[in-house]
Parts: sequence; C-alpha cells; structure tokens
Amino acid sequence: MTAGQMKLGAFLWATGHHIAAWRHPKAHVTAGIDIDHYIQLARTAEAAKFDMVFCEDAAGLREANVGIASQTSRSIGFEPISLLSALAAQTSRIGLVSTASTSYNEPYGLARTFLSLDHLSGGRAGWNLVTSASPIEAANFGSTGLRPHADRYERAREFAEVVARLWREKLGSGHDGQSFSVRDPLDLPRSPQGAPVMVQAGASDVGRDLAARTADVVFTAAQTFEEAKAFYDDLKGRMATYGREPDDIKIMPGVAPVVAETEAKAREKYEELQELIPDDVGVALLSSYLSISDLWRYPIDGPLPELPESEGMKSRQALVIEQSRRDNLSIRQLARHFAGARGHWRIVGTAAQVADELQARFEGGAADGFNVMPSYFPGELDAFAKLVVPELQRRGLFRTEYEGRTLRDHLGLKRPA
Amino acid sequence: MTAGQMKLGAFLWATGHHIAAWRHPKAHVTAGIDIDHYIQLARTAEAAKFDMVFCEDAAGLREANVGIASQTSRSIGFEPISLLSALAAQTSRIGLVSTASTSYNEPYGLARTFLSLDHLSGGRAGWNLVTSASPIEAANFGSTGLRPHADRYERAREFAEVVARLWREKLGSGHDGQSFSVRDPLDLPRSPQGAPVMVQAGASDVGRDLAARTADVVFTAAQTFEEAKAFYDDLKGRMATYGREPDDIKIMPGVAPVVAETEAKAREKYEELQELIPDDVGVALLSSYLSISDLWRYPIDGPLPELPESEGMKSRQALVIEQSRRDNLSIRQLARHFAGARGHWRIVGTAAQVADELQARFEGGAADGFNVMPSYFPGELDAFAKLVVPELQRRGLFRTEYEGRTLRDHLGLKRPA
Repeated sequence: MTAGQMKLGAFLWATGHHIAAWRHPKAHVTAGIDIDHYIQLARTAEAAKFDMVFCEDAAGLREANVGIASQTSRSIGFEPISLLSALAAQTSRIGLVSTASTSYNEPYGLARTFLSLDHLSGGRAGWNLVTSASPIEAANFGSTGLRPHADRYERAREFAEVVARLWREKLGSGHDGQSFSVRDPLDLPRSPQGAPVMVQAGASDVGRDLAARTADVVFTAAQTFEEAKAFYDDLKGRMATYGREPDDIKIMPGVAPVVAETEAKAREKYEELQELIPDDVGVALLSSYLSISDLWRYPIDGPLPELPESEGMKSRQALVIEQSRRDNLSIRQLARHFAGARGHWRIVGTAAQVADELQARFEGGAADGFNVMPSYFPGELDAFAKLVVPELQRRGLFRTEYEGRTLRDHLGLKRPA
Repeated sequence: MTAGQMKLGAFLWATGHHIAAWRHPKAHVTAGIDIDHYIQLARTAEAAKFDMVFCEDAAGLREANVGIASQTSRSIGFEPISLLSALAAQTSRIGLVSTASTSYNEPYGLARTFLSLDHLSGGRAGWNLVTSASPIEAANFGSTGLRPHADRYERAREFAEVVARLWREKLGSGHDGQSFSVRDPLDLPRSPQGAPVMVQAGASDVGRDLAARTADVVFTAAQTFEEAKAFYDDLKGRMATYGREPDDIKIMPGVAPVVAETEAKAREKYEELQELIPDDVGVALLSSYLSISDLWRYPIDGPLPELPESEGMKSRQALVIEQSRRDNLSIRQLARHFAGARGHWRIVGTAAQVADELQARFEGGAADGFNVMPSYFPGELDAFAKLVVPELQRRGLFRTEYEGRTLRDHLGLKRPA
C-alpha cells in the first residue's frame, strides 16, 4: 500500500445503479440472476486492480409496492454470500464484501459464514454490517415489526462485538449478553488476513460511534465536498475514544460516475438515462428514502412537505431533506436527482474530469477512496476501468498492481492481533 | 433417467469419513479448509456422473471435548453454503446438496439462500433439512438449551412447509403460524428445476412422517439388508397418506466402501485405518451418538449400560443399541465398529464385491441409490470412481452420461407444479 493512493470498491448491483438502468437499450434485464454476468464484472474489477467488489443486501423486496418494485433495476437478484462464494472461485485477488443484517441473523452463524468465505477466498472477505431499516424485511422475519432505531443499534453493537471476538479467537469463556449468548469458538481456524474486514454504512450519531468502535471501512453518501469533509473529520475524530488511530478506518463515499471520451458524450449518456425514469418510480424511491408512504399525495411540482420522525434509515432521510432545502427542489426534481444516483454523488464528464473530482476529495481529506456505482452494467464499469483507472494510475493515485494477497493488504489495514 | 438405475451421492467430509482418516499416511490434514481439495473432489464425482455431492453441517464443534474433537477428521471445515457456491462455479452438472438447520435459521432467509445457490448453479441445489440434535450448537444460539425432540420436529414441519411454499410461489397472503410469520414472496424468480430438492435424514417416527410429507430424497443409515428394507418399505408406505407416489421419494442409505483390486488389499486398507482409531476417540464418538456424557466411566470391554431416554438424535441411538444387542459387542468393539464408518454400512472388497452388495440392496427393494462415504479423500473417492462406477455401468445399474441438466433431472423427480 502506498499512502498516497486511494481505495476503490466496485459496487455490484444487478442491471446497474441507475434506477432506470433496466430500461436502457444496452441493459441486461436478467443480470441479477446471471452468474456469468457477475463473473465478468468481478474479473473486470480485478483486472483494473479494484480493492473489492461490494454487494448490498436485504432479505425481501426492496420496495413495498410490487408494481413499482418491478420497474426498478434491483427487484430480483442473488443472495450475496452464495454469489460472492461463487465469485471467489473465479477470481484470485479482489476483495469480496457482502452486506448482512444484525437483525435477522445470529452472530455465531454469521461469523462462521464470513470466515468460511474468507478461507475459501484466501483472505479476501469483508462483512458490511447493516441493522436493516426496512419494514418489508421485518415482515418476513416474524410479526413484531421493525425494531426502533436505537434498539437495532444496541443489538448491532453487541452483535459486532461477538463477531469480532469469534474472529479474533477471544471468546474466552463465552458471551452471555442482552441479545445473544454464545459458548464456543468457531469450527474454523484463524482468518488468513487475521480477521475478515468489517464494513459499515450507518451515518447517524449512534451509527458513527459503532463504526468508530468496530469498522475497518465505512461506506457513506455525500453530495458535496463539505458534507463529505464534515463526515470524514467527525468520524476520524471519534476513533481516539475507542483507542484507535484515524488511519485504522477507511472512509469510502459512494460515487456514481458517467464517463465518456468527451464531456458532451458523457452528458448525453446521462440525460438518456434520466429521461428513462418514470415519475412514479422516482417518487416511490424518494418515499422509501424518507420512510413515508404517502408522498404521492403531495403536488409533484411543489416542495417536500414537513416530515414526522421515523424509525427508518435516518442518514438517508437527512440527505434528502438537506438537498431539498439547499437547492429548493420540487418533489419531481428531487425524485429525479436521487433516483439517478440513488442518493450518491454523481460526476458526469471525461476521465480527466472524473479523476479531478475524485482527486480533490481524496487530497482534500474528505475520502480515503470511493465505492464506484456504475449506472448500468457492464458498460459503465467497463468505461470506468478503461478510462478513469488509467488516468488515476498516471497521476500516481491508484495502484498498477496488487501489493498483497488479502483484502486487508489492499486496504492497508493492520492485521488484528 | 433410466428406471433401473441407482442414484449416487458423494458425501464430502474434510479428510474423510473414517474417524482416523486424518492419521492416515495419505491424509490431507487441512482438507477441511482447502478449496482446491474440494474442487478436485467435486470434479471427480462429476466425471463419474454422480447425482450430487452432499455436505453435512453443524454450526459449532462436532464434539464437546475439544481434546477429542481435535483428534477427529472433521474438527474444522468450511460452512457448506459458501463451499457449495464456490463449487457451483467450478462444476456444471453435478447436484449440490447442503445441510442446514431448522432450529437456527429462519425460513425466509434459508429459502432465499438455497434458491440463490439453485439459480447460480443452473438448478442443481438441494437442502438437507436437519433439526439439530446437538447441545453444542444450541449453546452457540442462545442460552435456552436444546429444544425437546418433539418441539424441534414441530418447528421443522412448519419451517419446511413455509420453504416449500416460498419456492413454489404459493405463499398467497403470507404465512402466520406457530413459529414463523412471513409476508412476501422471495426476491428471486422460480427455480430452474421448479424448486430446489428437499433432502431429509430423520428416522424416528415423526422424522419419517415429515419426510413422507415433504422430502424428495432421504439419506439414512442401515447396517443390514433387513434394516434397510424395513425402513424403505415403511417410508414408501407412508407416502400415500400425503397424496404422494412411492417413487416421489428417493431413499439413499449411506455406504462406506473400502475397495481395491483384490479383496486382500481392500481388507489391508481397512485394517490399517481401524488400527489408527484411539480408544478414547471411539468411545467419545459413541457417547455423542448415544447423547450421553459418561460412557467412559464403564468398563471398555464390558457391555453397553442401560441408557435413559434422551432428547438427542433418536435414530442414531437406536442404531447403536440395536447393533450392540445383535452382535453382543463390548463398548470397545462397538466404538471401533461405529467409529470406522460413523454408523453406516461398511463394504470391504473388490469392485465386483462392492457392486454385488449395492446391486442386492437396490434390486431387493431396500434402496433407490446410495450416499457414498469414502474413508479418506481423495484416495477412496478416486478408487470408487475408478473401480466401482465402471462396474455398475457395465451392469447397466448406473448412468454413463447425465440425461438432464438439473438435480431433479438426475434423480428422476417430478418438477413441482
């Protein structure tokens, strides 16, 4: 690892991250269940020397309204542990990070499955901890409904602690806590990288504390440099509280680039996608980000209404409200804006322009790297690998070869004692 | 599928099924976490046209005494979903069956993961339902201890019903039952084979009823032809109660062959392994089969003591007690006998002798096929593939090429409506 180089993740997502990707003429509509498609993406990312591929997850539909769900890019797809295990057998160096929920798993089973993936990939596994904010998932795992935000995070804190102890063979006489009780060590030897990498994405106050306490990598969403910088400084500043160095955590905001040989061509590609977003789909996505169900009742060309407190994903709600106030956007405009990049930072331009923007956030101390979210697959991942990665390499900002064998090596993370 | 042909599974198990396999001079001691080892085994089985590879599972150590656990073949190993997903990417035709517990999973998550494996393997997945009889596992999933046998099976019945409905897209308005509540369909399309294959192994009365109600394949243990035949007839006879045909379920007892070019060489190989069993390990294994902890207190050359009722795996207890009475064996003799083949049917001989025995049980109506449990890997799987499979093929008892693409095709099972 060279200190002056950024980290890159390739966020895999069925047809593509743009909500209308499935309507694109070049879209691969059944990509979500095509293993050859995913193998191709992972190999592209590995050839470009990405640190990792990254998979989100939710055990259930992503959208309550089945009519709307069927009109988005990710209404169907593989469960990610099985997917990444298959990809492990078809790649040799790239990291493999999967999301899994602390609400609908038990720490012993989850720690064991990720350690198994870690062993079968030679030390390339990472776990992205989520607490699962969706009431849709909750309804598939019992009838008690979604747990309140604070309860989810308290359970997640204990869950992460038990998993870390199991991975580090520090269970001692077992764990007997509020939510979990575990007696024995895992039936697997220590990880080839010391322990699988822990990733988190929660951006609420309690989410940031949990990340500072336990995470190796944080995936986040920030529209502006100032937002990104404020988050970065805040989180790095919390590390000392938990006896950790600022560099022990890598902050990787999402970025949704649209890149082409000329700026005009890039703009054209972007507008082509934006035009494909149906208003009802955009509004439905916005509703899910805001954890409310009746946004469609308000005039689409009017402002966002005042919203009640909710128990959903607080960080995404705040992002939407912030953006709405900053740019004084109507519901339709907001919906298009967020639907396009799913709440993430969008850059449209040439390789040099995209590299300039990434470099500015990286060197300005607002990011240690980026989780790249291509609009549609494989086209936009190919374009990033072919155009942007060589530009970053020319500038000395990204590796030209893997320095080590494990995900921890790639990320420049200490091996846990 | 030819009606007159038997089904064959290759039961993969780290170093090998013989409890002392890890002490064998040809043993691969870290086989349990060597993915290349497993890829080699799966490819050998696929080249020999086996219907499936089969993995057992337990989320925890297999033996409470860590000293003993460390002396057996399977003290460490991959979690099987991640393992089989990796193998899916390195094979193209062979079925992939993994064990998973109804006690420590939720039906929505389990149904989703197996359907994902099914999609990424092109319709080759199967789930072996177990209720988890081990108190060691129970202690890693809460502090309430092992559930009683009847409760485990009641939960398993509801679990299997929900999974079958999710796989067959028959959830309707959801499920709201005693143990589980599930609202939505899975976020995956219908299986390439209609639904993943359901496997079971419980042999108690309630276990047989559950199999007759829901299973496509039953894995079982029978020492003698009479035991095998009685089980076969009983289970096939229960099918009508659930509106199913006898041929809708394939009964595949375990078989632990030791095969060589001559009978003398086969005997020599077997004795070499048997001599490697330490008495304390044999007694510990026997204790775990009997679900008692103090067997070591009794004289090793004396008979099995009278045993109390237990909440462990009733079918294995009955098998041991039956054998002890039939042959009037001492604890040491019983321990060696069971340790050698882990309670399963042992055949030692030439390819013709092994084929004779398999043919007799198959044609005698005591088995639809066999789950082959090689003593050590890869040597004994190679020997079976090289010597026994061609002999079965010559007799017209086993396929020379796959007839279809899915596990259901191989097994000759109906595609669920």
